[in-house]
Amino acid sequence: MRKGLRLGVDLGGTSVKLALVDERGRLHDKVAVDTVKQPRALVKRLSEAVRPWSNRSLLGTGVGVAGDVDSQKGVVRFSANLGWRRVSLAALFRKFKFPAPIVLDNDANAAAWGGYHLELGARPKSLITLTLGTGVGGGLVLNGQVYRGVTGSAGEIGHLVVQEGGDPCACGNRGCLESYLGASAMVRWARAAYAKKKQVVEPLDPKILEQRALRRDPVAQEAYARAARALGTALTSLVNLLNPDTILLTGGVARGAGLFLPQAMGILKSGAFKTPARAVRVVVARGKSDLGVAGAGLLVI
Amino acid sequence: MRKGLRLGVDLGGTSVKLALVDERGRLHDKVAVDTVKQPRALVKRLSEAVRPWSNRSLLGTGVGVAGDVDSQKGVVRFSANLGWRRVSLAALFRKFKFPAPIVLDNDANAAAWGGYHLELGARPKSLITLTLGTGVGGGLVLNGQVYRGVTGSAGEIGHLVVQEGGDPCACGNRGCLESYLGASAMVRWARAAYAKKKQVVEPLDPKILEQRALRRDPVAQEAYARAARALGTALTSLVNLLNPDTILLTGGVARGAGLFLPQAMGILKSGAFKTPARAVRVVVARGKSDLGVAGAGLLVI
Repeated sequence: MRKGLRLGVDLGGTSVKLALVDERGRLHDKVAVDTVKQPRALVKRLSEAVRPWSNRSLLGTGVGVAGDVDSQKGVVRFSANLGWRRVSLAALFRKFKFPAPIVLDNDANAAAWGGYHLELGARPKSLITLTLGTGVGGGLVLNGQVYRGVTGSAGEIGHLVVQEGGDPCACGNRGCLESYLGASAMVRWARAAYAKKKQVVEPLDPKILEQRALRRDPVAQEAYARAARALGTALTSLVNLLNPDTILLTGGVARGAGLFLPQAMGILKSGAFKTPARAVRVVVARGKSDLGVAGAGLLVI
Repeated sequence: MRKGLRLGVDLGGTSVKLALVDERGRLHDKVAVDTVKQPRALVKRLSEAVRPWSNRSLLGTGVGVAGDVDSQKGVVRFSANLGWRRVSLAALFRKFKFPAPIVLDNDANAAAWGGYHLELGARPKSLITLTLGTGVGGGLVLNGQVYRGVTGSAGEIGHLVVQEGGDPCACGNRGCLESYLGASAMVRWARAAYAKKKQVVEPLDPKILEQRALRRDPVAQEAYARAARALGTALTSLVNLLNPDTILLTGGVARGAGLFLPQAMGILKSGAFKTPARAVRVVVARGKSDLGVAGAGLLVI
C-alpha cells in the first residue's frame, strides 16, 4: 500500500460520503452530500464537494457503489438503489478530473477491504464481512485480496439459502439469510405477527423493534431469535466452506448484536467442524459507518 | 508449472493410487495398492510399489489424503477413513526417499486442482469441485489457486446447510447437503421409505437405487428428487457467494447426473442472481476417477 492520501467515495442511495484516506485507512477529512440520481449531475456535485481539497496531492480515487459493478471496465452494470443501468461511472469521474487512477468497486467489497485494514488489529488472512442493515450485504477478502468472482458478483452473503423453500426474499428466491435477518425482514415479520395477535404496534421501525426486544416483548424477541437461527446457520456454512480467520459484522443492526449474536454463535460452535470453528473470530465492528469510505480510498493501492 | 514428470499419490481409505503425472496432468504410468492403516507400513509398501520408477527423474511427490491436512507442516491432523490422528506423513515419505519436494494436501483439494488442469478445456478462473460419492466432498480453486482457508479446512461443500434443522448428518449437524445427496444419505432415506410402505427391497445399494429410479420406482425417484433439491439449493448459495465460472461434479453418483442435475439446474437458474447464474457452467467430469491422483501430482508446481 503506497503511503499518502487518496480520495475515498462511498456512493449510496441516499448519501455520498467523501474522505481523504491515508494508507492505513484513517480519515483525514470528510464530507457528505445528498445523492442525486442523474449520474452526470451527481459526479458534478461531487467534484464541487471536493474542491476544497484540490491543492492536495492525491494518489487516486476509489469509489464504492451500492450495486453490481464491473471493476475492470469501471461500469456500474445495475444499481437498484440508484436506479442505474450500465453507467460508465469511471469515465464520468475522469471527465470531472478526479485524481487518477479511478478505481471502482461494489460498496460491500469496499467495506470488507476497509474492515481488513482498519477495524482489525492484526491483519487476518481471510476475512468475511457481513453488513447488517436494511438487508444483508457481504464482502470477501480471501488470502489478503478482495475476492470478486468472475463477474464481480461474489459475496452475496445475504443470499445464502438457509432454508430450502423458506420465507420469500426480495431477490425472488426463498429462504435466503436476508429473508430472516436485517431491518426489513425483521420488521415485516414482526408486523405480521402482531397483526395475527390483533396487537396494534404502530409505528414499528427497527429502533422500536430493538427496544421492544430489550424489554422482552415476545414477538420482538422471536423476530430476533429467527434472525439468530438464520445467522447461525449461515455462519456454519461460511466457516465450513471458507475457513476464515475473521468474520466482521457491521451496519446498524449489528450494533444490537447482543440480542442475536450469542445464539448465532452457539449454533456455529455446535454445527461447524471443530478445527475451523475454533480458528474463527466473529467480531462486531467498533467504528461508526466509515468502513465503506475508508475501504473505497484503500482501493487505490 | 514446470515441465516434466512428478509422482502423484491419492491416498484413500481402501486403496492408494500412484501415478507418473506430467505438467498437463496426463498420467504416464500408474499403479494401485491396497491401503494398510499403520502409517509406516503403508509408506514402506508405497515405496516398494514405485521401485520400478526409481530410475526416472522426477520433480517431486504430491500426496492427496482423505482427511484434515496441515499442508504447511506436512501433517495429517485427522483422518476418519484411515483412523489417523497427527501423522507426520511428509516426514515418512522423506524417510523412505520419495522424490523431493513432498507436497501434502487434502484429497478433495487435489481433485479440484486436477479438475482445474485436466478436465476442463479452458482454464477457469474460479472452479468449485463437488465429489459425489458416499458423501459429498468439495474443493475450491479461486483465482487460479487452491483455496485452503486458514487451517486447511476450507471446501467442505457437503456441509453447507441447505435446511436449518433438517435431516441429521453424519457430522453431527442437521440439514447439510450431505444429509440429502450422496450414496449413503440416499440409500438410507430410501430404505426407511420402503420400510414405511412395508415394501421389501433387499439388497439395496447405490447401483440398485439408481436402476430403480431409471425404472420410475416412486421411492427411488423421490430419493433423487430430494438430492436434486438440496443440490440446487447448495449451488444457488455457491453461485451467489463465490461467483465461479465452473462447477465440476465428479465421483460415482455424478455419473447418474441425468437423474438429478436437470432439476438442480432449474433451481439454480431461478434462484441465483442473474449475472452470476449466467456466468457459470456446471460440468460433469468425463474421465474416470483419475482427477485425484493427477491433481496430487500437480501439487508439485
